[in-house]
Amino acid sequence: MSKLPNVTTSIFSVMSKMAAEHNAINLSQGFPNFPVDERLTDIIAKLAKENVHQYTPMAGYPPLMDQIAKLVYTSYNRKINPESEVLVTAGATQGIFTSILALVKSGDEVVILDPSYDSYESPVLLCHAKPVRVALNDDYTPNWETIEKAFSAKTKMIIINNPHNPTGKILTDEDFLQLEKLLSKYPKALVLSDEVYEYITFEEKHISAHTIEFLLDRCIMVSSFGKSFHITGWKIGYTVAPEYLMKEIKKVHQFLVFSVNSISQVAISHYLDVVDVQLLGKFYQEKRDYFQKLLQNSRFELKPCEGTYFQVASYTSISNDDDVTFCKKLITDHGVAAIPISTFYSDHKDQKLIRFCFAKDNLTLEAAAKKLCEI
Amino acid sequence: MSKLPNVTTSIFSVMSKMAAEHNAINLSQGFPNFPVDERLTDIIAKLAKENVHQYTPMAGYPPLMDQIAKLVYTSYNRKINPESEVLVTAGATQGIFTSILALVKSGDEVVILDPSYDSYESPVLLCHAKPVRVALNDDYTPNWETIEKAFSAKTKMIIINNPHNPTGKILTDEDFLQLEKLLSKYPKALVLSDEVYEYITFEEKHISAHTIEFLLDRCIMVSSFGKSFHITGWKIGYTVAPEYLMKEIKKVHQFLVFSVNSISQVAISHYLDVVDVQLLGKFYQEKRDYFQKLLQNSRFELKPCEGTYFQVASYTSISNDDDVTFCKKLITDHGVAAIPISTFYSDHKDQKLIRFCFAKDNLTLEAAAKKLCEI
Ligand SMILES: CSCCC(=O)C(=O)O
Ligand SMILES: CSCCC(=O)C(=O)O
Repeated sequence: MSKLPNVTTSIFSVMSKMAAEHNAINLSQGFPNFPVDERLTDIIAKLAKENVHQYTPMAGYPPLMDQIAKLVYTSYNRKINPESEVLVTAGATQGIFTSILALVKSGDEVVILDPSYDSYESPVLLCHAKPVRVALNDDYTPNWETIEKAFSAKTKMIIINNPHNPTGKILTDEDFLQLEKLLSKYPKALVLSDEVYEYITFEEKHISAHTIEFLLDRCIMVSSFGKSFHITGWKIGYTVAPEYLMKEIKKVHQFLVFSVNSISQVAISHYLDVVDVQLLGKFYQEKRDYFQKLLQNSRFELKPCEGTYFQVASYTSISNDDDVTFCKKLITDHGVAAIPISTFYSDHKDQKLIRFCFAKDNLTLEAAAKKLCEI
Repeated sequence: MSKLPNVTTSIFSVMSKMAAEHNAINLSQGFPNFPVDERLTDIIAKLAKENVHQYTPMAGYPPLMDQIAKLVYTSYNRKINPESEVLVTAGATQGIFTSILALVKSGDEVVILDPSYDSYESPVLLCHAKPVRVALNDDYTPNWETIEKAFSAKTKMIIINNPHNPTGKILTDEDFLQLEKLLSKYPKALVLSDEVYEYITFEEKHISAHTIEFLLDRCIMVSSFGKSFHITGWKIGYTVAPEYLMKEIKKVHQFLVFSVNSISQVAISHYLDVVDVQLLGKFYQEKRDYFQKLLQNSRFELKPCEGTYFQVASYTSISNDDDVTFCKKLITDHGVAAIPISTFYSDHKDQKLIRFCFAKDNLTLEAAAKKLCEI
């Protein structure tokens, strides 16, 4: 018997592969298709000849850990200790998996919102713990009443994703007040906050969970340079947590991977000297606005998008197909790949919604929009 | 309570840090200190400017997976299917952790030899399974009788490490015959074979477990380009397993890391076109011979070394200290760092033995030997 009997091939792999096979424009899996900043590729080209090819220390390349602490301070005015509160991971996925494995025990319950990104449940199951799914409201805001009903003495962790993939929703001050009220009744519950799109927010300001007073001692925050620097393939992310939790996370990290890609860590540490990550929101806001404008005469109905590089769209005026069928036809008949939103739901219920990734150069967005407007 | 209550800071981190603090010559943690092949650094410098910065497919960059299958064929005359039997991992450590997590279940037993590398037990414990340690013979050969006694109906896996870190021992045809005899009585037991030093063998030929007929359908082989190409920092390894096992390993991999560093994968795939990994044994054999010669007038007694880049030495004619104390004094008083062998034993029993890493340029070996000969 499989330890993960319900896991099938990732929809991101399926759609990217199908897109390639049909030569479709790939707006499915979330990754940019434009070139990486030349300053960063110059750095890595130069570094190749330097002494950067052996193990970094286990928790990360120390100058990069310092830079991460500096970034957190610049972005959120919060001081963290790079040595005891930071871990460099092989992408945010490894940060999430490692944190869950280190902290969640057999019999624990973990609250996961619905819809959500697909990588939260499996590590919980591998810990012999129970994922407890709670539906978001219809507008994708958290429903704090139903979340509270889902909490119990067994609740070890709630996983939030802010900004939220796939819906682009971001959490508000009011949400965090509600969370505080709830957690004050469950003093042992932790918050795992997946913030890989932390710098990709638009009109609303991003609130990083680990900078909030009442969460300081119970929040694990996971992020990714892949999203912030357009290098999803590098698989370099970081986790921030208070020392007593980080100690446990590092114990698992040591045996799970020991350390992560050295040359990429050194390159990012240099790049952080020169890049201004605060410009990222504006960059993607322009992409969002442009993509929305390009689709305004299409038959897709676009949902609000406050952050991330994803646009959710309804296609009910085009077709009655379920979203998986619609996405497949979108590739084969119209040459554009997207992700069916049902994959983000625990029960895979069809919502007649799909997700486009707009982290693409304008030519690609225009070519895709042209096809989408012809439907 | 910690899920890994007995885990402390890795001895490799402790010794490398202490070596740096005392400006000692670091023969402790296993990594080369000589430059990486220029052909490889040229490749990565050139690749930096190419389109290699986004996610590779989940199981690996397809041309690299093909190259791995080719390498296995060239080295061992065994044909494997790159698509269904190969996984590219963030170092061998991740391959080991992921394989154990995917295949070992609560209540299972896993046989681990003693001494052995320190990363096998923790993943077993995280699966709520039981590590069953079996002592090697005094000459570090496996004792198949005691191994058989340790097997039970609950045995899910035996972990072998060949060539063996820290002892440099390699398994013989006779060992595999004994293993076959044993496994024929336990048809459900798997073999996890850590072969990261597969190309670093000297007088004796390396036998790769996954190429042996009776193991074809029950062996998971883990290896690492870090050791073979002098790039321990890159953290690119690979796992080979039959499809029905690989399916389960990939399910965990997908959520543990999703994919691994893209630019490193592409670089290695190009490098495999030009490099001859079969030369590695000769390269390290010369280093071993040179290091042994340099130490022949020292008071250390050197043990046989058939493979790996580690040399075990007895210091009983110098000191009666336990090995940890001896290693600390070796750093502070004599300026050379080594690893105490007790760390590789489950009970940390002092054997009055230490391990030197000889993956160093000759100047470093000479400087270290000079200090060691003065003791
Ligand atoms: C790791 S593949 C999925 C990429 C991603 O974050 C997404 O498309 O949602
Ligand atoms: C991952 S640090 C340990 C390196 C190594 O393989 C060893 O020194 O045994």
